[in-house]
Amino acid sequence: MKPRSRRSKTQGPIAFQGERGAFSEEAARKLLGHGIDVLPCPRFEDVFQRLEQGAAAGAVIPIENTLAGSVHENYDHLQHYGFSIVAETSVRIVHNLMAMPGVPFSRIRRVYSHPVALNQCLKFFARHPGVEKVLHYDTAGSAKTIMEDKLQDAAAIASSVAAEIYGAHILRRSIEDDRRNFTRFFLLRTAEYTRRWPAGPPPNVQWKTSLVFSTRNIPGALFRCLSAFALRDLNLTKIESRPLRGKPWEYLFYLDFLGRVDSPQARNALGHLAELADILKVLGCYPRGS
Amino acid sequence: MKPRSRRSKTQGPIAFQGERGAFSEEAARKLLGHGIDVLPCPRFEDVFQRLEQGAAAGAVIPIENTLAGSVHENYDHLQHYGFSIVAETSVRIVHNLMAMPGVPFSRIRRVYSHPVALNQCLKFFARHPGVEKVLHYDTAGSAKTIMEDKLQDAAAIASSVAAEIYGAHILRRSIEDDRRNFTRFFLLRTAEYTRRWPAGPPPNVQWKTSLVFSTRNIPGALFRCLSAFALRDLNLTKIESRPLRGKPWEYLFYLDFLGRVDSPQARNALGHLAELADILKVLGCYPRGS
Repeated sequence: MKPRSRRSKTQGPIAFQGERGAFSEEAARKLLGHGIDVLPCPRFEDVFQRLEQGAAAGAVIPIENTLAGSVHENYDHLQHYGFSIVAETSVRIVHNLMAMPGVPFSRIRRVYSHPVALNQCLKFFARHPGVEKVLHYDTAGSAKTIMEDKLQDAAAIASSVAAEIYGAHILRRSIEDDRRNFTRFFLLRTAEYTRRWPAGPPPNVQWKTSLVFSTRNIPGALFRCLSAFALRDLNLTKIESRPLRGKPWEYLFYLDFLGRVDSPQARNALGHLAELADILKVLGCYPRGS
Repeated sequence: MKPRSRRSKTQGPIAFQGERGAFSEEAARKLLGHGIDVLPCPRFEDVFQRLEQGAAAGAVIPIENTLAGSVHENYDHLQHYGFSIVAETSVRIVHNLMAMPGVPFSRIRRVYSHPVALNQCLKFFARHPGVEKVLHYDTAGSAKTIMEDKLQDAAAIASSVAAEIYGAHILRRSIEDDRRNFTRFFLLRTAEYTRRWPAGPPPNVQWKTSLVFSTRNIPGALFRCLSAFALRDLNLTKIESRPLRGKPWEYLFYLDFLGRVDSPQARNALGHLAELADILKVLGCYPRGS
């Protein structure tokens, strides 16, 4: 299982936050194929910096999770850096219990994982009261640890991609309490890359556009902003307000609508919105994910 | 420092998630005064169950954070349990470095805290590369651990309330990277409690109403729903969409508006919204927090 065996056409690695085998890597492979090179980074900011420095040809970032909500930090980075969202995908967060090959389930006394993952598998721990939870920084990193340290009484909770990368054996699949746990990811490219992008997907694809804007909180301000879309029959798939701390009464909105940003309706809607919003930034236009 | 020295008029403890000294406890004291009894609970669901069982007279829950966003789990519990939001407040999340009294900063080699708190203090760790991060389940719990284990080379990152409760000495105040870190909390009471609630706050207070509703994702559906408020000059302070997994094309919305739920405008707006929304649930009406 050597994912570096063939080069993708992206001419460089795809950066993501986390260890090899993180759910972001799973999203990157779902978007670009198994042959891509990847560049794991410790923090989200490092991911954006690698793309800016040209050390990465693209970046895959989580933007929202059905249980945990939007990743505000990445919305902040999207506004600060001038990259474009060129694709989206959703990954179901499946937590698998894995151990060294040859270690049976009956020998497991400790389970390593990120606290969020451990807390999403509470029913498993309730059924196995003799198994201790051990906190780790990273889900994939916990798979790495049990394999590197050759632990004989420990397991990790991580993705199946992490099991594959580190050679761990999956003992129990999908031990998470709630299966409605999905994370949506964006693929980012530099503006320079998108300018020389080839023709792209077939014309019958459905498009989505993501933007952020801010308004002062006067009665009906948001309603007027949304009228820019409703009057042109543009359908919203996301709207979220975020209070701007330090600026009382000002709000930032995340908005996604179905449609290409260069369609006549979208151009008119954005012109209309620009009259009403203090800040308006289009983050990208991309084929709608499944 | 014995917070149990005088009884509040709530006739029972206030439940919250976390160890004694958690930010939720700070919010509870800010809302109800220092003299309240508190009931720490391991999970959010336990908090709601304690209130339902009558073991708690009220509950304080976080509902959104400026960096991390909405706490969807608590929105889910609010819909499931029939409690009322009767007050809100915001707490600035200040991370303090604390140790056993007598342990100087120069002796600190390890710092215990919840991974989220550790990750919000990265500049501190960059300035002190000799200090190791140690993962713990809880910020307040890390203060408890260094005091109970009498650690001589370790510190914890937690709230000043945790320092007070466990007797730790604060070595560095406010070491968080981003000071725009606020969490909004709700105080919940049972419907029975709110029925026998006394007159309440003075009439010149500004009121807020929180509700959830769902719509099918037809073009302009949200716009029509918001018209119920805009046509009556009711000002929104929060709107957030959340895709309902398992129900493609259906969305849940969290909405807050300024006004009492029993005012004529609000009654008309909610009647109008009920014509358009599949689900509509008012979560509470409460004085607007500072």
